[in-house]
Amino acid sequence: MILCDIGNTHFHFNKEGRLFDEKECSLKKEKIYFISVNDKKTKELLKKNPNSIDLAKHINFNTSYEGLGIDRIMACKSIEDGVVIDAGSAITIDIMVSGIHLGGYILPGLKAINDSYKKISEKLDYNFISQIDTKILPSNTIEAISYGGIGMVISMIEKASKNQKIYFTGGDGVYLSRFFDNSIYIKDLVFRGMKQTIKENDL
Amino acid sequence: MILCDIGNTHFHFNKEGRLFDEKECSLKKEKIYFISVNDKKTKELLKKNPNSIDLAKHINFNTSYEGLGIDRIMACKSIEDGVVIDAGSAITIDIMVSGIHLGGYILPGLKAINDSYKKISEKLDYNFISQIDTKILPSNTIEAISYGGIGMVISMIEKASKNQKIYFTGGDGVYLSRFFDNSIYIKDLVFRGMKQTIKENDL
Repeated sequence: MILCDIGNTHFHFNKEGRLFDEKECSLKKEKIYFISVNDKKTKELLKKNPNSIDLAKHINFNTSYEGLGIDRIMACKSIEDGVVIDAGSAITIDIMVSGIHLGGYILPGLKAINDSYKKISEKLDYNFISQIDTKILPSNTIEAISYGGIGMVISMIEKASKNQKIYFTGGDGVYLSRFFDNSIYIKDLVFRGMKQTIKENDL
Repeated sequence: MILCDIGNTHFHFNKEGRLFDEKECSLKKEKIYFISVNDKKTKELLKKNPNSIDLAKHINFNTSYEGLGIDRIMACKSIEDGVVIDAGSAITIDIMVSGIHLGGYILPGLKAINDSYKKISEKLDYNFISQIDTKILPSNTIEAISYGGIGMVISMIEKASKNQKIYFTGGDGVYLSRFFDNSIYIKDLVFRGMKQTIKENDL
């Protein structure tokens, strides 16, 4: 089975469990189960693989959130209870209770937050240090920015999760998960939701 | 007495208790007590008012923080115990205990955070709504961004302040103070520190 999560810049493939990313779609004449947030890349995939199936047309997901992105739906779909966090260019925080999506937050990603300092003043133009201790008070600018910028994301996740189990995915998911005891990182969380959708719909 | 807090873009004056801002210094031949983060504007002030006194040369402030900005020092100076938050283009959070500065954080300002979403994706290009309820889960994109972006600042302040009294100043200080019961907004907090410095040094 071939799965594809089409993002803004890349095709993210799962081919028989092997994960790989491509800027251009190299696969041809395959039956690919996909989701997409990028219309142009969707056309490219369908042109090369006309028998592919858009899972967005087969969604069965309980939420009152208007306009929830298909990638967020799939990340949440396989989680019955807990907080689902996809930490990429943006950080989405979604709350699942008994298989129902109750709502969620969107934060800027860590890179976007870091970049925002540089635009305020050249005096704040530092790259975050990753080794931060949230219990220590910063005593210079680079610490103040790193502990502040990363710390506000951690504080928000703590507040939103209220000690529920946290399921991280996305590029910064591994890094952020280290700050939370009750968390795990699942690299293929979106693909798990896609597989479940395929199974539920007998596709 | 005339006080001036020279920022990156404006001269902030306090003339006998009257507060006003200027892009160019209109005062001449006055004795102005000032602090500055802008060398060019400092020269302009001193050229027009040669008898002015730079309070940065008369600092008596207990901290182990390296490179603490003169505006942050003055905002903290008149506070014995509590959390001092200057919410402007950046948001500084400083902790004072028994007149000693223990350290502090720097967050991006609310405008900088809002702008950072727009750079991630045009789908996130919304202005924050200001009427947010931190107890309600967002159920659409504009809420998810507003509650997320403003919420992470509020969460960080909650965590850093640990129920100590919070002293807000700066352009977004009034707005943020409404989320904290144990807080007050002091518009002229920096000037209070400057006055105290003048008094201590008998200038």
